[in-house]
Amino acid sequence: MNDAQLIAAPSGRHNRYLRALARQPVDTTPVWIMRQAGRYLPEYRATRAQAGSFMDLCQNPELATEVTMQPLRRFELDAAILFSDILTIPDALGLGLHFVEGEGPRFSSPLRSVADIDRLGRIDPEQQLGYVMDAVRMIRRELNGLVPLIGFSGSPWTLACYMLGGRSDTGFKEARQLAWNEPEAMHRLLSLLSDIVIDYLAAQRAAGAQSLMVFDTWGGTLPFADYREYSLRYLAQIVEGLRKLPEPAPVTLFSKGAQAHLSAMADTGCQALGLDWTASLRESRQLVGDRVALQGNLDPNALRANPKALRNMVALTLADYGSGPGHIFNLGHGITPDIDPEQLKLVVDCVHEFGREPTLLA
Amino acid sequence: MNDAQLIAAPSGRHNRYLRALARQPVDTTPVWIMRQAGRYLPEYRATRAQAGSFMDLCQNPELATEVTMQPLRRFELDAAILFSDILTIPDALGLGLHFVEGEGPRFSSPLRSVADIDRLGRIDPEQQLGYVMDAVRMIRRELNGLVPLIGFSGSPWTLACYMLGGRSDTGFKEARQLAWNEPEAMHRLLSLLSDIVIDYLAAQRAAGAQSLMVFDTWGGTLPFADYREYSLRYLAQIVEGLRKLPEPAPVTLFSKGAQAHLSAMADTGCQALGLDWTASLRESRQLVGDRVALQGNLDPNALRANPKALRNMVALTLADYGSGPGHIFNLGHGITPDIDPEQLKLVVDCVHEFGREPTLLA
Repeated sequence: MNDAQLIAAPSGRHNRYLRALARQPVDTTPVWIMRQAGRYLPEYRATRAQAGSFMDLCQNPELATEVTMQPLRRFELDAAILFSDILTIPDALGLGLHFVEGEGPRFSSPLRSVADIDRLGRIDPEQQLGYVMDAVRMIRRELNGLVPLIGFSGSPWTLACYMLGGRSDTGFKEARQLAWNEPEAMHRLLSLLSDIVIDYLAAQRAAGAQSLMVFDTWGGTLPFADYREYSLRYLAQIVEGLRKLPEPAPVTLFSKGAQAHLSAMADTGCQALGLDWTASLRESRQLVGDRVALQGNLDPNALRANPKALRNMVALTLADYGSGPGHIFNLGHGITPDIDPEQLKLVVDCVHEFGREPTLLA
Repeated sequence: MNDAQLIAAPSGRHNRYLRALARQPVDTTPVWIMRQAGRYLPEYRATRAQAGSFMDLCQNPELATEVTMQPLRRFELDAAILFSDILTIPDALGLGLHFVEGEGPRFSSPLRSVADIDRLGRIDPEQQLGYVMDAVRMIRRELNGLVPLIGFSGSPWTLACYMLGGRSDTGFKEARQLAWNEPEAMHRLLSLLSDIVIDYLAAQRAAGAQSLMVFDTWGGTLPFADYREYSLRYLAQIVEGLRKLPEPAPVTLFSKGAQAHLSAMADTGCQALGLDWTASLRESRQLVGDRVALQGNLDPNALRANPKALRNMVALTLADYGSGPGHIFNLGHGITPDIDPEQLKLVVDCVHEFGREPTLLA
């Protein structure tokens, strides 16, 4: 079945995620979890130890396929997401991505000047990020129609924040300074990154990704007007670029902390918006109307509550969205390494149990 | 002059902050800066070195008065704010506040159980926080009518986050766990803290504070429904309690990252809302109508931009609010230690220059 036929087929685990993205009725609310392939799983930690570094794992298609599949063996998740990192593009551009334990990503050659920016150029994703495309192809074969596969990229603003030498704990002051002091150079960088993200996601689509997601982790930390100019503008270009593909895939945008921009984000023409845990699904749905599906948004901290409280919060999240199609259950941010997998199993099972009749919970 | 007479007098530096809080016309937009008495000032660092620890400085009324006055000597600021910390209340409750350089506040005896919560009781602010009231009285004498004095407290939710042993880098998981697993115990704690905050701010008012501010630093990190139940509910109780004082002072609420709750915050009956740098003053004003004044909201990172870009951002902030009374210029968060004081001087002078005719900048 191609994706259009999948969406048209009766709802089940194999297609309820794609049907919800298309705002079609589903047999129960689909659920996947940001960072579902991750350190909270002992089998992930074992594979990671076998691989070496985090980047070694990302760059090994067999092992990336293995960790992508691991959570699907434990939980009745309704989508797989490519195991990779949001910062593969800057690494392919030669910036030298690596991870400092407990401190997050770093680049060995961050951008230090406008000249550094102007030396950058387009890449060929099948060449320079071939390991990602190989993983996408291998995961699709391994999934064999069980659930759809999500491909993804970091957003231009988020990539730029890291590439300019910023660390999240300094508020990415280098990126903001460049935007304010040399806005034309920043726009050149963001424009190039948008083109590369389009190429990269188009290649993932061609390799088999059935849904595409752009993670704008840091856009929401910008002042209101700057978010529109430096983040949303380029998200819109990406959505536009991906609509022109021969077989477009649904695109989900996730800007953490950008609740105030939700309606403008829906105007990009994307198919879905991810919400962080501070948003109200009900109020968000009123804002976006029937323009987009909504993904979210249980607080990742809720997975540390006792099972009774956790079940209750899942029910409240479903009731907050209310009845009717277009809801994809997820956390409002990635699952953290300290979570007991049994707690996630409870969430997934509760979503499917309660999601059959969400109106009864309101 | 008492405060009512001050507000009624023609607008000038001595009263434009209080007039703006009362949404009365002003000769130019008033400005003060969160953490205006702070480490970015060399004279502050000298006084701090003389005092010893940060808490030694807070607890010494003469030196607290000195650092409160320092920024007013350099910049044409329109309000002074008591030099103190948002966590003095838990310290007075016996939790042992101290500061770890570069890591923020810690308690030597955090709350570890419901029994710990149930051992807590009301305090007498003039007794247990006498150093704060002495500082308020001394600063008022020292100010001698130059500008009004702002008193403040942390919000119940923010106090509870720290008291339960949380650190901001863990998302205050202890506080959320208590709220979800034992909501009644959390409500007992928050209710007690609200009573104490009311007593504390009433004592600051009686000692001479002319405006009162509640900093809800961490409320905005809560899920939407939990913000209403665990943070806003108690902010509303505080506003209500302070309205019953013989001579009420205007109350400003600041919940960082709580833009989605702005209209509900205005419903508390407070006089003003502080906005963080991600909010739009224009959209916020549409949401709150003429119920409250608005304080904010230049990005603190903007103080690292070049002077031309910085002037432009000040002008855009004023234009974003637009014409008419009710705007108090401030940053959207506290000024950081690395800022050149000359950059802050530029901001303050630009606000007063441009603020005379904000409509011309739109």
